Amino acid sequence: MSNLQKEDFSAWYIQTIKQADLMDYSPVRGCIIFKPDSYEIWEHIQEAFNLRFKEEGIRNAYFPMLIPESFFTKEKDHIEGFSPELPWVTEAAGEPLEERLALRPTSETMIGTAFSDWINSYRDLPYEINQWANVFRWEKKTLPFLRTSEFLWQEGHTAHEDEASARERTMRMLEIYKETIEGLLAIPVYSGQKTPSERFAGAVDTYSVEAMMKDGKAVQAGTSHYMGTKFAEAFDIKYLNRDNEHVLAHTTSWGVSTRLIGATIMVHGDEQGLVLPPAIAAKQVVLVPVGPWKKKTEILERLEVLSKDLKAAGVRVLIDDSDNSPGYKFNEWELRGVPLRVEFGPRDLTNNQVMIKMRDIEGKEAVSLDGIVESIQTALADMQTRLLETARKNRQQHEYTHIETLDELKEHIENKRQEGETPGFVLVGWDGTDETEEIIKEETGFTTRNIPFDPIVEKKTCIVSGKLAKHTVWLARAY
Amino acid sequence: MSNLQKEDFSAWYIQTIKQADLMDYSPVRGCIIFKPDSYEIWEHIQEAFNLRFKEEGIRNAYFPMLIPESFFTKEKDHIEGFSPELPWVTEAAGEPLEERLALRPTSETMIGTAFSDWINSYRDLPYEINQWANVFRWEKKTLPFLRTSEFLWQEGHTAHEDEASARERTMRMLEIYKETIEGLLAIPVYSGQKTPSERFAGAVDTYSVEAMMKDGKAVQAGTSHYMGTKFAEAFDIKYLNRDNEHVLAHTTSWGVSTRLIGATIMVHGDEQGLVLPPAIAAKQVVLVPVGPWKKKTEILERLEVLSKDLKAAGVRVLIDDSDNSPGYKFNEWELRGVPLRVEFGPRDLTNNQVMIKMRDIEGKEAVSLDGIVESIQTALADMQTRLLETARKNRQQHEYTHIETLDELKEHIENKRQEGETPGFVLVGWDGTDETEEIIKEETGFTTRNIPFDPIVEKKTCIVSGKLAKHTVWLARAY
Ligand SMILES: [Zn+2]
Ligand SMILES: [Zn+2]
Repeated sequence: MSNLQKEDFSAWYIQTIKQADLMDYSPVRGCIIFKPDSYEIWEHIQEAFNLRFKEEGIRNAYFPMLIPESFFTKEKDHIEGFSPELPWVTEAAGEPLEERLALRPTSETMIGTAFSDWINSYRDLPYEINQWANVFRWEKKTLPFLRTSEFLWQEGHTAHEDEASARERTMRMLEIYKETIEGLLAIPVYSGQKTPSERFAGAVDTYSVEAMMKDGKAVQAGTSHYMGTKFAEAFDIKYLNRDNEHVLAHTTSWGVSTRLIGATIMVHGDEQGLVLPPAIAAKQVVLVPVGPWKKKTEILERLEVLSKDLKAAGVRVLIDDSDNSPGYKFNEWELRGVPLRVEFGPRDLTNNQVMIKMRDIEGKEAVSLDGIVESIQTALADMQTRLLETARKNRQQHEYTHIETLDELKEHIENKRQEGETPGFVLVGWDGTDETEEIIKEETGFTTRNIPFDPIVEKKTCIVSGKLAKHTVWLARAY
Repeated sequence: MSNLQKEDFSAWYIQTIKQADLMDYSPVRGCIIFKPDSYEIWEHIQEAFNLRFKEEGIRNAYFPMLIPESFFTKEKDHIEGFSPELPWVTEAAGEPLEERLALRPTSETMIGTAFSDWINSYRDLPYEINQWANVFRWEKKTLPFLRTSEFLWQEGHTAHEDEASARERTMRMLEIYKETIEGLLAIPVYSGQKTPSERFAGAVDTYSVEAMMKDGKAVQAGTSHYMGTKFAEAFDIKYLNRDNEHVLAHTTSWGVSTRLIGATIMVHGDEQGLVLPPAIAAKQVVLVPVGPWKKKTEILERLEVLSKDLKAAGVRVLIDDSDNSPGYKFNEWELRGVPLRVEFGPRDLTNNQVMIKMRDIEGKEAVSLDGIVESIQTALADMQTRLLETARKNRQQHEYTHIETLDELKEHIENKRQEGETPGFVLVGWDGTDETEEIIKEETGFTTRNIPFDPIVEKKTCIVSGKLAKHTVWLARAY
C-alpha cells in the first residue's frame, strides 16, 4: 500500500481524481470538465438541496450570466471584492460592445436590479429565490473542484421586511447547509461567523460552515450572508411598508458550490483512492462474479436477479462481467470509491451467500442471499453513518485548543511538520482587530476560519496581543 | 373577450408571458430572466428528458463554457456557421488574454477535443454524453424564450464505431424528442430531415421535429445531427478498431432548448392568456373558496384537507385564500394557465361537491367530494390528452397540400392575409436544389422546415422549377 496520501496530499488528490475518472483539464486556464462520475455527485447534491429549498418555499429561477459593468459599480465593497477576478466580454457578433459585460462571479447585482422592479409592497415580502448556475472567478491558483475559474453553484437571494426576518433566513440556510453537508456528504462542519476581513464583499455579516480535510486544511463548505440594507440601497430595493412608507428591504444571499465535490474526496478518500458516501455515489454497489464463473452460468444469472432486485429497491448497482481478473476489478472499483462490493462465485452459490466488502473497512463478510437486498441497504446506511463518525474522529484528532500565544502556534506548526503530521485546526482567543488577524496570517499562513457558535473551549486572551479575547476563533490553513 | 391573439399574435404573446409572470427583460440585449413559473416548466422538461437519457445509458457531464478561438477554426463549416454570432471574452483579471475565448454557442469543439483524448479503442464506443448548459448566440432579432442571446439547453454528443450505429443514435434521439414533446408538452410535431441549406454547421445530415404555432408559424423544436467523420477528422477522434487499425469515429449531436417554453405558450395559449399542459404546470390545481366562505370556517378547512390529499397524491396544488374577489382570482389563475380550478362554497359543502373548471374548455362541472382526488387526477390526464388532440386539429386546419406552383403559393399567402388568417404550413414538391429553395425564401418569406418521413401527400413536381420533385417538403414562416 502506498503512503502517498500521508506524504504528499496534493499529489494524492490529483492522482485520486484522475484514476477515479472524475475530471479532465481544459485548455482554458483553471476550467475543468466534470466527467459523469463527478457530475452525478453534483446532481445528488442538487436533488438534496432542491428538496430542502422547496420545503422552505424557495423557488428556482434563472438570471442572465452577463452583467453590465455599471451594475458592479453600484455597491462599492462589492466591486472592490470582485473586480480583480472578473473576465469581460468586450465584443460580440463582430463588433465591440458599448459597455463591457462581466461573466457573473455571483448575481447580487443582477438580482438586486430585478428585485428593485419586482418588489413593491410588504405583501411581496419575503421574496425568496434560488439559482443553479455557472459562475466565474479568474483566480491565480486553481485546483480541480476546489478552486476553478468556472464553477457550478447555487446562489439563494432573498428580500425581507426587516432585519429579524432576514437574519432568520440567513441562519436557517446555514443550518440547512450544515444538516445537508453532514447528512448527505458525511462531512462534519463547524458553523460560525466569519471575521470582518473574511466577509463576503458587501455583506454586513457572513456565516460559514467549515470542514477539515484529511490533511488538516480547511474548506469553506458553504456561506450565508446578511446584507442589511446595503444592496437594497445600492439597487433601490424599496417597498411600501404596513405604515404606507417607502423603506429599504433587508436582503440575504447564500451558496454552496461544486467545491463540495472536492471536499468530499479530501475528507473520505484513502490510499486506495476515492471513498464515496453511499448517498451520493453514482454507483453504490458493484457485483463481481468470481472463481470459474464463466463455466457456471447460474453465477451471472443470480447476479442479474440481484441487480434487478436492487434496482427495484432504488439501489444504484452495476455488474462487472468484463474479462478482467477479479483482482483488477476490485482495484478498479475501489479507486472509483464504490461503497459496497459483492463477490459471488460457485462456493457462494452452494452456500446461498455472497461475500460483501465495504469500501471503508477491512475484511469481507459472508451474507446470506435470503434478505440480501435489505442486508445491502442496511450496510449502505451503516456506511453513510460510519463515514460521518470516522470523519468526526479524524477531525477531533487534529483540533488543538491548548495554544495561547503566537509563539506556541508557530512551535505547534513546526512540531507537527517535523512529525510529518498536520497542524490541523487551532482554536484561539482573538481580540477582534484586523491587525492581529493580519499578523497571524503573515507569520503562520493560518487564517481565521470562523467564530464557532459553540466553541469546544472558550478562550480568554488574544493569541497575538494578549489582551482580553473578544472572540474564540478557529484558525487553519485553507484551500 | 379580446381578439388580440387573432389580430396581433406577437402583442398577444408578449402580453401573455408578462401577465403570467414568466419572464423579465435584462438590460443586456436579448437576455431574459426566467422567473420561477417558466423555470419550473424547464425543470419538468429536464426531468422528463433525463429519464429518457438514462434509459438510453446516456450520462450527464459538464464542459467548460469558454472555448478558445483556435478550437473553432478546426472545422471550417462550423466556424463559418457560428462566428457571426459569437460573444468574446478578451480580458480577465485586469489583463488582456493571449487568445480570445468564445462563450459557447454549442460544445462540439470542446467535446470533440475531449473525445479525442478519452476514446482509444472500440471498447470505449459508443461514448455517449449529455450536457445541460447555458449557451450564447448574439442574434439580431430576439424574442423571449424563442430566440434569446443566452438560452438554456441540453446538448447530447456521442461517438460511434460506424455510420450505422451513429445514424441509429441520431434517429433514436429524434424519436425521443417527438415522443417527449408530444407527450409532455402536448405539441404535435413533424419529424423529418432538414434540407442541406438548413443543416447544422458541420453536419452531414440534420433531422428536426417542427411544431406549428397558433399563428401558423413554425418552431424548430428539436434537432438531431449525424456528423459523419467530419468532426472526428477535425478533432482527431480516432480509435483502434477490431482489426487493430486506427480509424475515425462517427459522431452525433442533438439538442432541445428553452425555446420549448415559448412553443408551449404559442401552441396552447388563448385569449385569456396562458394554457399549460398539466404535466409541466408549476401549479396544476388552484382551490378557490367562494361565497361567504370566511363566515363558514369549514369551507377553508375542507379545502385544506383536499390540498393535503392532492399533495400526497403528487398533484401540484395551491389554495388561493387571499382577500381578492373570486372573479379576480379566476382571472388571475387563468392568465397563469393553471389547468384546473376548484371552486368550493357553502352550497357545495351542503351538496358534498366541488365545482371544477378546466382551463381549456368552457363551463363548470359539479363533481362529488367522494373520490375527488381520483376525479381530479383523471381530469388532468384527460386535459393533457385533449390539448394534444386540440393542437393536432388546429394544425390540420392550417396544413395546405394543394399548392403546385410559386404563384399559387403567393396567392395562398395573399388570400390568407386578406381573410385575416394564417398561411400555415404548405407541403410542396421540391427539386432538391439550393437555388429553388432560395427563390421560395426570397419571394415568399417561407423557408423549408423539413422533408417529413411520412408526408401526408407525395408531391410530384417542384413548386419553383416544375421539374420532377426530388422531395416533398414542408414550407412555413418560422420563428
Ligand atoms: Zn494525524
Ligand atoms: Zn384559422
